[in-house]
Amino acid sequence: MANGIGELLPPPRLMLTPGPSNVDPRVYRALATPLVGHLDPWFTEMMGDVQGLLRQVFQTQNRVTFPISASGSGGIEAAVVNPLEPGDEAIICVNGTFSERMAIIAERTGARVMRVEAPYGRAVDPEDVRRAGKGRKVKLVGITHGESSTAVANDLNAFRRVADELEAILVVDTVSTLAGMPLDVDGQRLDICFSGSQKAISAPPGLAPITLNERVEQMLRARKTPVQSWYFDLTTTMNYWGKERTYHHTAPISLIFALREALRLVVEEGLSARWERHRQNQQALLAGIEAMGLEPFVETPAERMITVTAIKVPAGVDDRKVRQQLLDEFNIEIAGGFGPLKGKIWRVGLLGCSSTKNNVLLFLAAFEKVLLDQGCKVPAGAGVGAAVRSYAETSAVATGGKK
Amino acid sequence: MANGIGELLPPPRLMLTPGPSNVDPRVYRALATPLVGHLDPWFTEMMGDVQGLLRQVFQTQNRVTFPISASGSGGIEAAVVNPLEPGDEAIICVNGTFSERMAIIAERTGARVMRVEAPYGRAVDPEDVRRAGKGRKVKLVGITHGESSTAVANDLNAFRRVADELEAILVVDTVSTLAGMPLDVDGQRLDICFSGSQKAISAPPGLAPITLNERVEQMLRARKTPVQSWYFDLTTTMNYWGKERTYHHTAPISLIFALREALRLVVEEGLSARWERHRQNQQALLAGIEAMGLEPFVETPAERMITVTAIKVPAGVDDRKVRQQLLDEFNIEIAGGFGPLKGKIWRVGLLGCSSTKNNVLLFLAAFEKVLLDQGCKVPAGAGVGAAVRSYAETSAVATGGKK
Repeated sequence: MANGIGELLPPPRLMLTPGPSNVDPRVYRALATPLVGHLDPWFTEMMGDVQGLLRQVFQTQNRVTFPISASGSGGIEAAVVNPLEPGDEAIICVNGTFSERMAIIAERTGARVMRVEAPYGRAVDPEDVRRAGKGRKVKLVGITHGESSTAVANDLNAFRRVADELEAILVVDTVSTLAGMPLDVDGQRLDICFSGSQKAISAPPGLAPITLNERVEQMLRARKTPVQSWYFDLTTTMNYWGKERTYHHTAPISLIFALREALRLVVEEGLSARWERHRQNQQALLAGIEAMGLEPFVETPAERMITVTAIKVPAGVDDRKVRQQLLDEFNIEIAGGFGPLKGKIWRVGLLGCSSTKNNVLLFLAAFEKVLLDQGCKVPAGAGVGAAVRSYAETSAVATGGKK
Repeated sequence: MANGIGELLPPPRLMLTPGPSNVDPRVYRALATPLVGHLDPWFTEMMGDVQGLLRQVFQTQNRVTFPISASGSGGIEAAVVNPLEPGDEAIICVNGTFSERMAIIAERTGARVMRVEAPYGRAVDPEDVRRAGKGRKVKLVGITHGESSTAVANDLNAFRRVADELEAILVVDTVSTLAGMPLDVDGQRLDICFSGSQKAISAPPGLAPITLNERVEQMLRARKTPVQSWYFDLTTTMNYWGKERTYHHTAPISLIFALREALRLVVEEGLSARWERHRQNQQALLAGIEAMGLEPFVETPAERMITVTAIKVPAGVDDRKVRQQLLDEFNIEIAGGFGPLKGKIWRVGLLGCSSTKNNVLLFLAAFEKVLLDQGCKVPAGAGVGAAVRSYAETSAVATGGKK
């Protein structure tokens, strides 16, 4: 023992938060593979594997496609501080914590930022963006694909049309959706798209995959001022991930090993099968919670994320006590709400490896036990029963071989 | 196979670069431990272990002591963009790639940055800083403890005295020295000190431990403008690592598990024993290369880093071919020079787990074989012989139980 600090013995949690998700044993094995140097010729060649796999998952041919050496929030920063310069105009669509974060970061560039807001729990209205941008020279429209703080999904195609009218680039946060919800970077013409490793990709946290197209590359080359962040300056980091493999900073080798293996798992399963698995498991979860008398926070079904589901905390029930008992009695972690939603919603993530039938059924069973103990009347077995029936209805459809 | 991308099969490299260094099996085991959430009560308590261990290794009581979720270069950015605001004056001591990087990052804050330079291969002269700062209101003096691009060490105590005269804070880059060379943050009154996980701590890359004192905390609280980087904004990230454990971004859980184990190994060995191990192994390496007729790049012994040694490439020898053969024939990775030193020096890191007698002897033997093949006349067995004698002279001194 080092001065009282003993062996690392974390509890064996089942991760049903909006991230990190559970990690496949193959990915842990890759993570713990003895490392090599970040300039080792073997490594600089292997980086091409990771980029090729990311292009498949983003569905893009973009040359500049690589994992940023930071968590998803670093992806937000890279995605806005690179195209924006002081005096530029930007519209950020804000309907939760992470889109709010995008606006805050954009403001720190010295750009003039207009926030187009929607109430938490609702998608942003593309008409509001159209109105806000009318007659202005907007350089960038920023939007979340899935705003995981509220579990709301925005309709990217509608925002692409508005951004086209404004002649603005579209920057899309897919941190909580990539590899879990349908997305096609080239087909949907998303100019900058970034994600996080620890969500539906199911690698450990610490990397933010990003992709950007030729139009953005030109925009970066035309900058008049240096990017304010050196670490997130894509004009230079893209050279380390470019043909030259020019040293920029020491990449987190072990995390890149793990990401490579997690991406192989995504591609082996196939994107369509993977999206369908996520959809079916969420349908079963929703059937279960509604049968228990609980309500999803997002009222409009078309505005619900597939990967993260928010549930209203019933009146009289203590959010924290429920989450604590889930941890203590079942080793299951779900998340609460942020800011104005603190104590008002639970957020359940069924992301990547965590999106399985087994996890849905176990969660509903454990949730029933905990709610009962916390004084919330729930009909016996209703949640599990409804989920089982949801699966039975879709049993003719292949589920990608996942239990 | 995922579209032709096969199993991850890296070559088993011996890491003798200036980082990443070899990683202990215990640290890989911690790295691959199934993760928990970044807001899990178990994790937020465990974060205190990591902070306590870091305080022991930095030798500080500073409240704000934690690993930044980025590589060492992210540590540089955090260390200068937080104290500096537009219009502030800063002096950065530049004698290599990494101190140059500190100056570039400082310039992006809008501060007025004076570079005090020394030729590559020499330490910066504190008198030059005194002269440059005379009559000016300097807020910050930045310096590397070890400039690993040239293997030069700067005398921190001398710069502390000058910074005191200027009433400036001292910001110290210990990326390549912490846990490998004597350092005492509180005793030497270093105001901001940061490092990298993949050097003498021997964890995987991706974390930048940082510590800052009460004076800097007050400086941050008194800022008039927001820190330009949201991700590296210590005024908020220190709340996640503070008593409140307020969510900021998703920390790289697996890397923090690994860092915890690597720090336990440092504390178990003891700082003094570890420094002495690094010193003895470098002495043996230096004895060996000099006996082979090679010259250290840093001519003044007192200005040499202990953890990284630079060797002049002899006339007529191809730097790249030597490094490639070391990789191909022996799986040993060393580094070349950057920028003006490209092709002119080799850099050998004996950091953390990589600093062992076995590695020194093996490296010298392999290096002799490669140099011979590359047309460089070296006396038979001279390098190994000299290193063995260097160890024999110090054999009375305990080596911390490391082979």
